[in-house]
Amino acid sequence: MNYVVIMAGGSGERFWPLSRMARPKQLLKLTSATSMMIEEAIDRITPIIPLENILIITSQRLQQPIREALPALPAENIIAEPAKRNTAPCLALGAAVIRSRTSDPNACMAVLTADHFIGDAEAFRRDVLAALEFARTEDALVTMGIPPTRPETGYGYIEVSGVRLNESGIEPVKSFKEKPDAATAADYVASGRYLWNSGMFFWSVDALQRAMERYLPDVGAAIAPMTERLPEGLPGGLPGGLPGGLPGGLLSEIFSALPDISIDYGVMERASNVFVIPASFPWDDVGSWDALPRMQAQDDHGNVVQGRVVMVDAKNNVVVNATSREHVLTTVGLEDHVVVITDDATMICPKDRAQDVKKIVNTLRAEGMDHVL
Amino acid sequence: MNYVVIMAGGSGERFWPLSRMARPKQLLKLTSATSMMIEEAIDRITPIIPLENILIITSQRLQQPIREALPALPAENIIAEPAKRNTAPCLALGAAVIRSRTSDPNACMAVLTADHFIGDAEAFRRDVLAALEFARTEDALVTMGIPPTRPETGYGYIEVSGVRLNESGIEPVKSFKEKPDAATAADYVASGRYLWNSGMFFWSVDALQRAMERYLPDVGAAIAPMTERLPEGLPGGLPGGLPGGLPGGLLSEIFSALPDISIDYGVMERASNVFVIPASFPWDDVGSWDALPRMQAQDDHGNVVQGRVVMVDAKNNVVVNATSREHVLTTVGLEDHVVVITDDATMICPKDRAQDVKKIVNTLRAEGMDHVL
Repeated sequence: MNYVVIMAGGSGERFWPLSRMARPKQLLKLTSATSMMIEEAIDRITPIIPLENILIITSQRLQQPIREALPALPAENIIAEPAKRNTAPCLALGAAVIRSRTSDPNACMAVLTADHFIGDAEAFRRDVLAALEFARTEDALVTMGIPPTRPETGYGYIEVSGVRLNESGIEPVKSFKEKPDAATAADYVASGRYLWNSGMFFWSVDALQRAMERYLPDVGAAIAPMTERLPEGLPGGLPGGLPGGLPGGLLSEIFSALPDISIDYGVMERASNVFVIPASFPWDDVGSWDALPRMQAQDDHGNVVQGRVVMVDAKNNVVVNATSREHVLTTVGLEDHVVVITDDATMICPKDRAQDVKKIVNTLRAEGMDHVL
Repeated sequence: MNYVVIMAGGSGERFWPLSRMARPKQLLKLTSATSMMIEEAIDRITPIIPLENILIITSQRLQQPIREALPALPAENIIAEPAKRNTAPCLALGAAVIRSRTSDPNACMAVLTADHFIGDAEAFRRDVLAALEFARTEDALVTMGIPPTRPETGYGYIEVSGVRLNESGIEPVKSFKEKPDAATAADYVASGRYLWNSGMFFWSVDALQRAMERYLPDVGAAIAPMTERLPEGLPGGLPGGLPGGLPGGLLSEIFSALPDISIDYGVMERASNVFVIPASFPWDDVGSWDALPRMQAQDDHGNVVQGRVVMVDAKNNVVVNATSREHVLTTVGLEDHVVVITDDATMICPKDRAQDVKKIVNTLRAEGMDHVL
């Protein structure tokens, strides 16, 4: 039995002012005109894994917005973390939920993302099935690596061994590399022996638990007691009918006591049975506004435009008018900028400063303007 | 008796979206936080010329907005042109209005502007009085010239003779020059023998009429009949009590038949009794958004900022948030741009494209979006 766990707790700072604390990136329509990224993520995987096997683990703040965004997904599959922890405790909780729902000793877990661009859903599903199959049969921890297309310094890299084990290209991971400097990134890309770390993982629940027990014993040891406590209800559960919330319950206590550590640092970089499958689909982490031209249609002058916009002599801009009232956004002579306007906030920056939108968010927070965050 | 005539018919395109068809530049608070430019123009001159002697000639569309903006000015002093003509017919109408109100054969007229920045009101008034005195005693047509501070290609230039006739520096004009190219403008400024043409004039009504009769006979001949018809009421006059409007009346017919010609081209460039007084005050024509830093306070990084604005790493921008609702305008890394946001429109451009805001206005008009013009 295959399950999907999507970690969707993002804070929504990088796409401010469109993203907000209660409407982070995965709830925006950034890669499609009609669907939120999280809708796309679900639609992409359901041809091979049924809705009832798809779990979303998010924050308490986002649980309700995500339930509203995904009415077809069983409400009890949208789970709020009892506390903000890193990815290792989050995935231990996911493992516990799967354990509580199936007696299949070979249950496998695909850890997917809901805030990345995936350009070929068919190829994606092929890779996911190959990774799950390899994980199940080889007792492996499999990560998805993206063949790099530029010397990006914002991602971690995976060094591969060069020994392809099957026709999917799965091979043992030699090492994980932190975000490199520009020169190192260029070397990585030129060598052809590095992949971007996508944050997607595939393993059996058993293999994950054993790896956690070995490398993160506190976390590994929490899976069984959390599984036992799940019938009491998940924190932030639905009132009435479905399992109610027990924010002060035992499960919350167990979870909250876990260390704040990532699955990459805590398990993947230490374990020996780690493999990588090279993605066969176009991928982008949609890290900031300047990523949009890599995945959205552009006009003849390289502009990505949404909403009511009038531009004269514009080149290579990202311009989004998301106001709900009648408001016209105009420019003349604008080049290489991002402009986003909503009813209560406007953000303008050069494209190469798009990753610094969080500095605006920090400033607004410091100035007590939380009503626009 | 001295009169002021202010021609205030501007179309309000260059400061869009703050300026609109019904709210052109002179009705904006561009050079002061608290006063509209036209209020500043009136306040600047009233210490030497009383309100009842100040006439504003504007368009029919702007007559009522200007009356509302200047409640202290007698309503009958705010006159709507019966038709859109150039400055020569407009000033002939001004001469007729003055004639209809005074029997002083030496009545003089200062033609002033309401949409320019004047940095020293005291010096300005000194210059105005000197120019009026010279015009009265020497039967001269006097223009105000601005000592150039940069090789501006957007203004006309006045070539002076180099013979200063009094301590105000008044001297005969040698020639008027059209807007020069950049090299010529640089030569003009380097020579020290050129002044910018400010569009301010000083003459007796008699001298103006004689000059018009000689160089623009149709226009000159219209002054007396328009004066006779004024008791019938000015077009667009006030309903009830004050002279009512007779848009189809004889005065309108006379005015509308006048040629579309400027006072510069029609009279000043042809007459021989033309003199110039060099302005002794800082001046700017406030031609577009990028002019604001020349007259408004800037922050430590050269930004002119109005309204609720949060900027990170901003340099040399003009940023105006004129929304009436709660809306925060934010930027990160923005340099050398103009951003203006109102409730229904936003405009963004590089500072050196600020004069092209009218291209946006033209595009909006072509696309039928007149509701934001």
